[in-house]
Amino acid sequence: MDKKLKVGIIGAGRIGRVHTLSLKNFVPEVEIKAVSDICFDAAAKLAEENGIPHAYKDYKKILLDPEIDAVLVCSSTDTHAQISIEAAEAGKHIFCEKPIDLNVDKVKSVLKAVDKANVKFQVGFNRRFDHNFKKIKELIDSGELGELHIVKITSRDPEPPSPEYVKVSGGIFLDMSIHDFDMARYLTGSEVKEVYVAADCRIDPAIGEVGDVDTAVITLKMEDGTICVIDNSRQAVYGYDQRIEVFGSKGQAEVQNDTPSTASWSTAEGVFKEKPKYFFLERYMDSFADEMKSFVDVVINDKEPPVTGADGLITIEIGLAAKKSYEEGRPIKL
Amino acid sequence: MDKKLKVGIIGAGRIGRVHTLSLKNFVPEVEIKAVSDICFDAAAKLAEENGIPHAYKDYKKILLDPEIDAVLVCSSTDTHAQISIEAAEAGKHIFCEKPIDLNVDKVKSVLKAVDKANVKFQVGFNRRFDHNFKKIKELIDSGELGELHIVKITSRDPEPPSPEYVKVSGGIFLDMSIHDFDMARYLTGSEVKEVYVAADCRIDPAIGEVGDVDTAVITLKMEDGTICVIDNSRQAVYGYDQRIEVFGSKGQAEVQNDTPSTASWSTAEGVFKEKPKYFFLERYMDSFADEMKSFVDVVINDKEPPVTGADGLITIEIGLAAKKSYEEGRPIKL
Amino acid sequence: MDKKLKVGIIGAGRIGRVHTLSLKNFVPEVEIKAVSDICFDAAAKLAEENGIPHAYKDYKKILLDPEIDAVLVCSSTDTHAQISIEAAEAGKHIFCEKPIDLNVDKVKSVLKAVDKANVKFQVGFNRRFDHNFKKIKELIDSGELGELHIVKITSRDPEPPSPEYVKVSGGIFLDMSIHDFDMARYLTGSEVKEVYVAADCRIDPAIGEVGDVDTAVITLKMEDGTICVIDNSRQAVYGYDQRIEVFGSKGQAEVQNDTPSTASWSTAEGVFKEKPKYFFLERYMDSFADEMKSFVDVVINDKEPPVTGADGLITIEIGLAAKKSYEEGRPIKL
Amino acid sequence: MDKKLKVGIIGAGRIGRVHTLSLKNFVPEVEIKAVSDICFDAAAKLAEENGIPHAYKDYKKILLDPEIDAVLVCSSTDTHAQISIEAAEAGKHIFCEKPIDLNVDKVKSVLKAVDKANVKFQVGFNRRFDHNFKKIKELIDSGELGELHIVKITSRDPEPPSPEYVKVSGGIFLDMSIHDFDMARYLTGSEVKEVYVAADCRIDPAIGEVGDVDTAVITLKMEDGTICVIDNSRQAVYGYDQRIEVFGSKGQAEVQNDTPSTASWSTAEGVFKEKPKYFFLERYMDSFADEMKSFVDVVINDKEPPVTGADGLITIEIGLAAKKSYEEGRPIKL
Repeated sequence: MDKKLKVGIIGAGRIGRVHTLSLKNFVPEVEIKAVSDICFDAAAKLAEENGIPHAYKDYKKILLDPEIDAVLVCSSTDTHAQISIEAAEAGKHIFCEKPIDLNVDKVKSVLKAVDKANVKFQVGFNRRFDHNFKKIKELIDSGELGELHIVKITSRDPEPPSPEYVKVSGGIFLDMSIHDFDMARYLTGSEVKEVYVAADCRIDPAIGEVGDVDTAVITLKMEDGTICVIDNSRQAVYGYDQRIEVFGSKGQAEVQNDTPSTASWSTAEGVFKEKPKYFFLERYMDSFADEMKSFVDVVINDKEPPVTGADGLITIEIGLAAKKSYEEGRPIKL
Repeated sequence: MDKKLKVGIIGAGRIGRVHTLSLKNFVPEVEIKAVSDICFDAAAKLAEENGIPHAYKDYKKILLDPEIDAVLVCSSTDTHAQISIEAAEAGKHIFCEKPIDLNVDKVKSVLKAVDKANVKFQVGFNRRFDHNFKKIKELIDSGELGELHIVKITSRDPEPPSPEYVKVSGGIFLDMSIHDFDMARYLTGSEVKEVYVAADCRIDPAIGEVGDVDTAVITLKMEDGTICVIDNSRQAVYGYDQRIEVFGSKGQAEVQNDTPSTASWSTAEGVFKEKPKYFFLERYMDSFADEMKSFVDVVINDKEPPVTGADGLITIEIGLAAKKSYEEGRPIKL
Repeated sequence: MDKKLKVGIIGAGRIGRVHTLSLKNFVPEVEIKAVSDICFDAAAKLAEENGIPHAYKDYKKILLDPEIDAVLVCSSTDTHAQISIEAAEAGKHIFCEKPIDLNVDKVKSVLKAVDKANVKFQVGFNRRFDHNFKKIKELIDSGELGELHIVKITSRDPEPPSPEYVKVSGGIFLDMSIHDFDMARYLTGSEVKEVYVAADCRIDPAIGEVGDVDTAVITLKMEDGTICVIDNSRQAVYGYDQRIEVFGSKGQAEVQNDTPSTASWSTAEGVFKEKPKYFFLERYMDSFADEMKSFVDVVINDKEPPVTGADGLITIEIGLAAKKSYEEGRPIKL
Repeated sequence: MDKKLKVGIIGAGRIGRVHTLSLKNFVPEVEIKAVSDICFDAAAKLAEENGIPHAYKDYKKILLDPEIDAVLVCSSTDTHAQISIEAAEAGKHIFCEKPIDLNVDKVKSVLKAVDKANVKFQVGFNRRFDHNFKKIKELIDSGELGELHIVKITSRDPEPPSPEYVKVSGGIFLDMSIHDFDMARYLTGSEVKEVYVAADCRIDPAIGEVGDVDTAVITLKMEDGTICVIDNSRQAVYGYDQRIEVFGSKGQAEVQNDTPSTASWSTAEGVFKEKPKYFFLERYMDSFADEMKSFVDVVINDKEPPVTGADGLITIEIGLAAKKSYEEGRPIKL
């Protein structure tokens, strides 16, 4: 390729910044041409720091630039659907952060627009690109573990979000567990047929007051017979806890948390080890880079996205079923 | 004490042998005076090997011996209740293997007889005496982990029992999970208020043919708000998998499998570690010894048994609720 | 065998007690008939607690008892040689604690007496029977690690002995490192041809004042080309540190410390694990039992002792060479 | 800073490429203006791939460019000294790969030239920037481990170099152990006063034929009383083995190998873990990036280099003493 892929970043917040740095440092095939944010200063700052020629307040300017091949939708969740639809209509390839939308119909509209425009559409389930989880997937795919019987996903945040955030987030199942639903589908290669939730508000009453829970154990019956169990907490005081275990007819595999170093030390007080890497930026940095490499590869080489719009849609359906299971206290079929 | 506690062993099978050896090697306050088994040869062999003066076919001879202070009921499950009642009536203190019976009413009859006779009655949930699980319990009780939110119990056997055994065992929930129900109650110090089961027959169709499952994920909602999740399998091909993780407001604790050695080794082929100790006899040997020490201490020093008849009863009720949950596909309240 | 092996214990101190309990609990082929100690009360107490019929002040009474087949020499180091010689002359099989003596000539006299009397003579290098080190040995013997190139032995005590003990102990190389010299020979199956010591008194000046060191790194060149390096400390404040690593042409193997449980726990303060088992009684309890089983098997079945008098002699020669290397600051050939 | 630091890369081989990528991806304050290599094609390729404006055959063109502030000397070892002297005379700040030279006098000439020109001079001991070893250093510096008594460095390559390379490398002590000598000095903050080597040619006879060894255990007595022991092998068949343990009056600390993932898996065959990251490029990638950040910070902010020319000189002196110790079979004082 003698010409670089030209990319526009829509949304200069935390995740927009992460993707910008990944593209700049690890994806030489890309040139970031513009960044937009409804807070113009954020866009301008990100642009200046990274040598990006254009910064806009209005994302439409990015969509109107005929030179731009692809956009990253990193804006707030409630704008993902609308921007994605417009981007598709503008003929841009799209990388869209999760969740596409909290409303299934709106998600379907996005998929329809993408389909009609025949552009690439990849959803931001970065954990599929994580070195630990990829190893688990490889072990499953190799057949070394036999048929899967049980999958256990531990996914706990180091600190709870603000009640304000919780209110607009769609709740724990659509905001947090959604990554784990995707992981369950990715690892098993099978679809959820029933979901059961045991959950409660144990950490912060304010989360309960806005109608959400902060502690959940979710059981998924998969179509292939695998039983997946996810445990979520909004606050693991020792840090971001992201582990997976899979168990099959021929064996078991598990991954532990990443740590800043492999050190252990012993004194008269006890034996100590490092705490997990603090939160998702530290923990999943390599996966964000590989996610961007993957998206660029999809666009340049006209490949099927590794995480499709359908993946985005189904996980939202599972999340809504989980919410219903919690509310009605019974398993919900999908 | 200048006089030894005189004990009779009822049932000279695998677990009767285990308790005999524990008493002989680790509990100097005890003299084993007699052993009985409906298969007289088994009783005679165990007696001879361990210098036990009397071997009988009929356990009633043990109950009739006025010198004998206490009996261990190690016979087949379907005889536990009847023998325990007779032993109570004969004024013997009783250590009874789990489960007391598969029928709640029969269990209640036992507890009534024990109560009336005012003898000690301890149930064989040996895992409470395991060095790993005791450490978890200590950490919880110390308050270091804060309030419990989630408890995860992994309990997988190395190989499935025969369909013949399964048929009389009461099924996985009463035969195998019952240990885990006890552990959930023991660790949380709280009672189960609701149980939900996702389960299937994945390992051996013959198990399904006799109406049982071999793979299960069980969610327990405890009265104190803790959510416990147990995963059971009748066949972990890599060995007996017995791990626990607890998660609370102030921290997390977990125990791994015991192994024959701490060795790891690396070659061009890979990095290797020891497999878990093979099965419950290897894995829980120390707990069986401590269980016997505990029972003898209870009798000699007139203490409250650490595992009571009520513990035996409640776990059976949970097991029956689990079975119902599986059969009806919905959570069951206790 | 229809008759039990009759054993006398000479020395009712810490290690005499350990062997008594091992024989009683784990070696049913043995009957302990007598115990002696220059402190008669110690002998009487050990006898009473364990149902041993005879307690003496004078070990000669044990040697004079024609019924006694074998003796355990567990008295103070300076008496090992004399008692062993007399025991051999009395036709008793002998298990002798390490070191046989600090003087090479006296050790040779013992071996001569044993040889002449044609009795079994086993030396107390219990670590050869440890489950961890046996696994290392198995891995070496299997050929899986190829030819050995490097062996690393970490051997650190939890707390320093008193200067009084140090004074009579023969110094760190004959008292403490001697176990590691035996391990180096055992694992490699080869003899030491040269020893070099870097050592110092870092922990307790009082140890230096009686002419000893408390910290040492010892390099052994073995005849087969393997280089062994031992690091000793009289005080690892976190507990008894006993690890080994072996490295060969086809791989590497290592064992870690045993711990009271496999627990790890995480809080806001950090991630914690158990400290090693405290000291040699906790750490090596299983090896002491297996050592006794082995000795009894040697005597009953007329086998070659797994640890011979020659093993006892050679390790003392290595210890003396180590001392010389430290004093002269140069490698010493054996 | 409104102007970027302009850098020239001298040597476009493996390590020149590593530093180029580190600078480009992680050090935004730098602009790489030119690269040279006696093999012009290598320079041209590296330049083209990374958008570097100039590629030369002759490094003098870089030294003559008045815009260039600093150079990286990544050429073959035998050219380090001459190029560094010329670079100093040209007023360039210098990052020089290790070893500066195999000849102490030539190294001293470099330091003199650097001193006279008053330019920054940093030596490429990248392991000081490794996340694992930095953690060990932090634990030491925090005082948590007390006074250091013993330091153990394991440093084994995954495969031996070619005899051709060995011939010009200066031998194992100057080529490979030199990193470990630097680490011993860095961790203890103390100087070597005596070195003793036990070594042999065990892996490849061809290495012995060119006068070198491939297996070594090196004991360093440090001025502060710490004893360091380094074990080196040219071939650990399971991969690059880079571990350190430090032991002090108040505790112990150790770091394990980094692995591609944290996965472990268990089957009927055994329990498996990942092998170490393959070799230094994979293992030390983060340290190379931090090393570059550090050098650029030194130049821009006029700081003292964290690894000085003196560090480069002393480690060579230790290496030569180690060689002498091996040849003469005795400890050598520095």
